[in-house]
Amino acid sequence: MSSSHNKHALSWRRLYLSRAKLKAASRTSALLSGFAMVAMVEVQLEKSTPESLLIAFSVTTTLLVAVHMLALLISTCILPNIEAVSNVHNVNAVLESPHDQMNCYIQMAWAFSTGIGILLFLAEIALLCWVKFSMYSYYAALASTVLIVPVVVLLIGFAIHFYRQLVSHKYERSNRDIEELENMATQLDNHMNASNIQNV
Amino acid sequence: MSSSHNKHALSWRRLYLSRAKLKAASRTSALLSGFAMVAMVEVQLEKSTPESLLIAFSVTTTLLVAVHMLALLISTCILPNIEAVSNVHNVNAVLESPHDQMNCYIQMAWAFSTGIGILLFLAEIALLCWVKFSMYSYYAALASTVLIVPVVVLLIGFAIHFYRQLVSHKYERSNRDIEELENMATQLDNHMNASNIQNV
Amino acid sequence: MSSSHNKHALSWRRLYLSRAKLKAASRTSALLSGFAMVAMVEVQLEKSTPESLLIAFSVTTTLLVAVHMLALLISTCILPNIEAVSNVHNVNAVLESPHDQMNCYIQMAWAFSTGIGILLFLAEIALLCWVKFSMYSYYAALASTVLIVPVVVLLIGFAIHFYRQLVSHKYERSNRDIEELENMATQLDNHMNASNIQNV
Amino acid sequence: MSSSHNKHALSWRRLYLSRAKLKAASRTSALLSGFAMVAMVEVQLEKSTPESLLIAFSVTTTLLVAVHMLALLISTCILPNIEAVSNVHNVNAVLESPHDQMNCYIQMAWAFSTGIGILLFLAEIALLCWVKFSMYSYYAALASTVLIVPVVVLLIGFAIHFYRQLVSHKYERSNRDIEELENMATQLDNHMNASNIQNV
Amino acid sequence: MSSSHNKHALSWRRLYLSRAKLKAASRTSALLSGFAMVAMVEVQLEKSTPESLLIAFSVTTTLLVAVHMLALLISTCILPNIEAVSNVHNVNAVLESPHDQMNCYIQMAWAFSTGIGILLFLAEIALLCWVKFSMYSYYAALASTVLIVPVVVLLIGFAIHFYRQLVSHKYERSNRDIEELENMATQLDNHMNASNIQNV
Amino acid sequence: MSSSHNKHALSWRRLYLSRAKLKAASRTSALLSGFAMVAMVEVQLEKSTPESLLIAFSVTTTLLVAVHMLALLISTCILPNIEAVSNVHNVNAVLESPHDQMNCYIQMAWAFSTGIGILLFLAEIALLCWVKFSMYSYYAALASTVLIVPVVVLLIGFAIHFYRQLVSHKYERSNRDIEELENMATQLDNHMNASNIQNV
Repeated sequence: MSSSHNKHALSWRRLYLSRAKLKAASRTSALLSGFAMVAMVEVQLEKSTPESLLIAFSVTTTLLVAVHMLALLISTCILPNIEAVSNVHNVNAVLESPHDQMNCYIQMAWAFSTGIGILLFLAEIALLCWVKFSMYSYYAALASTVLIVPVVVLLIGFAIHFYRQLVSHKYERSNRDIEELENMATQLDNHMNASNIQNV
Repeated sequence: MSSSHNKHALSWRRLYLSRAKLKAASRTSALLSGFAMVAMVEVQLEKSTPESLLIAFSVTTTLLVAVHMLALLISTCILPNIEAVSNVHNVNAVLESPHDQMNCYIQMAWAFSTGIGILLFLAEIALLCWVKFSMYSYYAALASTVLIVPVVVLLIGFAIHFYRQLVSHKYERSNRDIEELENMATQLDNHMNASNIQNV
Repeated sequence: MSSSHNKHALSWRRLYLSRAKLKAASRTSALLSGFAMVAMVEVQLEKSTPESLLIAFSVTTTLLVAVHMLALLISTCILPNIEAVSNVHNVNAVLESPHDQMNCYIQMAWAFSTGIGILLFLAEIALLCWVKFSMYSYYAALASTVLIVPVVVLLIGFAIHFYRQLVSHKYERSNRDIEELENMATQLDNHMNASNIQNV
Repeated sequence: MSSSHNKHALSWRRLYLSRAKLKAASRTSALLSGFAMVAMVEVQLEKSTPESLLIAFSVTTTLLVAVHMLALLISTCILPNIEAVSNVHNVNAVLESPHDQMNCYIQMAWAFSTGIGILLFLAEIALLCWVKFSMYSYYAALASTVLIVPVVVLLIGFAIHFYRQLVSHKYERSNRDIEELENMATQLDNHMNASNIQNV
Repeated sequence: MSSSHNKHALSWRRLYLSRAKLKAASRTSALLSGFAMVAMVEVQLEKSTPESLLIAFSVTTTLLVAVHMLALLISTCILPNIEAVSNVHNVNAVLESPHDQMNCYIQMAWAFSTGIGILLFLAEIALLCWVKFSMYSYYAALASTVLIVPVVVLLIGFAIHFYRQLVSHKYERSNRDIEELENMATQLDNHMNASNIQNV
Repeated sequence: MSSSHNKHALSWRRLYLSRAKLKAASRTSALLSGFAMVAMVEVQLEKSTPESLLIAFSVTTTLLVAVHMLALLISTCILPNIEAVSNVHNVNAVLESPHDQMNCYIQMAWAFSTGIGILLFLAEIALLCWVKFSMYSYYAALASTVLIVPVVVLLIGFAIHFYRQLVSHKYERSNRDIEELENMATQLDNHMNASNIQNV
């Protein structure tokens, strides 16, 4: 009984985590791709801008918007099903929610919009500085790129560290869960033996 | 008694699902058509832009806005009726809600704004890159289109996979429901037989 | 007793419906008239644009904004009175709310901002395409108008269908209510007769 | 006892009404003055624009922003005091709220931002059409002004009708309240007489 | 016992008031400084604009943004600490909140963003009209300034009146509180005397 | 028992504080970096602008956006895990939340977006005034920089003062906690001695 209750509680927590991740993914990528699109429409190109820069700018903006659309599609498809379940005040309703089945898509939407999305956005800023400043000052454009590189390294470092801590946190937690289960099993055994003895 | 209660619970879940879908549809398409309109108003056209490109751009923007308006109209018509019901704290109120009767419209609004809307938006981005870059660099415009194609394939693949999983999920669930109903029926039979025997 | 309770419940549901409609109306028309205004301010007119087009553009934008202002005024006047009542946790408070008295205004605000507002917005898009594209490509402008026409027909068709279903839904419901009232009356009669017999 | 409870309930309802009005006033005027400012900054003036038009445009924009600032100041000063009270779950807390003392300011903020604000905004639209269209087409600018006039008349008509209905609604309600109070008084008299008789 | 409970209740009310003020301050100044920045970036300066006007415009915009940043910094530093406490459902938690200690900063943030912020914004509008209109029409620019002056006087008048009423309201309230405390004290005395007598 | 309950309560408060800080950080830096990006895209550069100014402008904008992206990444990674826990109505769930483990990242995100972010934004404003005004009026650009300096000093002063007060507040609180623990310990000792004596 208690263990089925625990399984439900864990499933609800995963449901809330999935919901929060999908919401964060959709909000983040809406913001980033919105800025990228406005920047592309409003920036003034010049005949003197080198073609390689234009290709890089076009590719980055398109990728940024495409990644956002993927995250948005996944989020709009799965979120209503999760929210419909989370509004029902019934502990068993969690079994009807598709968040465990669709978990890989939820992770993908989240990783795309935060991980890849933020790296692409930093690349977009560096390229925008080249498009905007390169015909006035070469060093102004270069300075921006030079600054972006350590930030990208820092971000990737944080992402890796965060991922490892999360994994070790989960590992620790599941170890603790297993120990608890073993304790429960031995207690149950003792209890059953005790009651058997009583019945005898 | 329990079965009428179950029917109500399922109807409430469908109500919450419809509400969440209509909200997501209206939010998504407001965002996408808003960007499309701003892009059309603010982009600078040139005399040298080929006519076929302008026609494609005009058609895509108009379609995007039209699809949004359809989704918005459906959402604004049906949502207030659903929200009025979901505010009433009465289990039977769900029968007054039009979400089962209007289900095909809700699905249409949702499919239009997420499915068709997102594909149109990706086409819009590709066309915008042509309008913006083609007179400076042919390859910059081409690169964007080349990138959009696999993304569109990926999106359609996800949509089909998601739809199938949802259908199989529903099928499984209704199978389980039918089994439960059969179990309930046999239990009821046994119970009635037992009570008949007792009465005898 | 139960019937006065039922009347209150129906009145609360109408209150929630009015509140949801006014909110939807105010949100929808803020969005649409905002886009229309920004489009008018930012679009670049040319000396070669035909006068009839300019007149149509000016008239549509003004109508769109005027319809929004009407819906906004009605919404800002009536909503605070409804919200003040819906915050009071007292079943009888519903009698103090002006939503039944002001019902025709609420319907008007809602019909204006969704029905007329959305049709005007589609006309605005078609006109905007003419203003923006006509001097570069006649067919690009024409294509947009050709697309808008079936969408408008579809929208009007949906609106009529939705209105009819809502009316038939209400008719059905009131029929059921009348039957229930008759049942209650006959039950009451039986009960009174029974108690009269008991008293005799 | 019951009458002091009733007085509290009425005061809470006025508090909720004041809060809803201040919120609506602040939201409405933020929207309207925001559009007016953006329109003023972004519209392109011409040397040929007549001076009287420029003066009217400048005066209307300034008035619109000033009315908004007045409503915003009143709202920012009074709302925190009302919200602090409405968060306290204590029936007597309503006595500490300044909404009855500051009632004339709340009415002023609301009337300024909805009544005067909406009329000024319609005037702003008409003037904007003159500034934008007059050098391309005299009739396009005129058409907008001709349309605004009946809308203004309609709005004033609604405002007067709404105000009268609200007053009559209040009058009716206070009449009913007085009757109830008289009933309570006579009941109390009867009760006291009855208890006096019992005591005798 | 009751008096410590009262002290807690007063402290909670001050906490809610501080929270509402910080939120209002941060929202108001974000709006105003946002408009000011957009206006500065987008307005087109001319060589003929007099230098004194440019200096005044630059100084006002900078001050407006600086005042906003100060209010934002204070709000972002203090709000999380207050919100963390207001989420804990424990009456004593209010003692951990820094809202009493930081009260002068909260008042400063609020006064800066509403009082000084709104006056600066009105000055900004007047200067913007000069920058925008002065080369087309001297009187259009003058009219705006002439209108701003009485509005500023009105605003300062309201602010002083509001401040006085709030102070008198507080004075009255604390007088009432003192009377209540005296009543409680005398009651306590009587009670203690009575119980002493009983004990004797 | 009571002490484990206290530890949970403190952990929940830290969870709420972390959540509020991450939300504030993400909101603040979205606002500031958004304005910075729009300003960079929309401001018009001139051939005559000195290169050092362009480099400073490019560096500041890039840093501002990079700081925001760092805060956004941290916030999007950690917030969903905290929100999933705060939705579970289980006192022990707080142990599963990573807010204590990730505390240094949360502090970093918050310090980056409020502390460094606001200082960078003020620098951005000063630089923007130079880019915008320097070719029309040297003194207009200078005036803005002269104003920013005391504001920066004031902000740093507030930050240091706030930090010290917070630390002393915490110090005081932990002192009080230690005293309470000691009191509890002595009470427990007395109680145990008393019960030992009773048992004897």
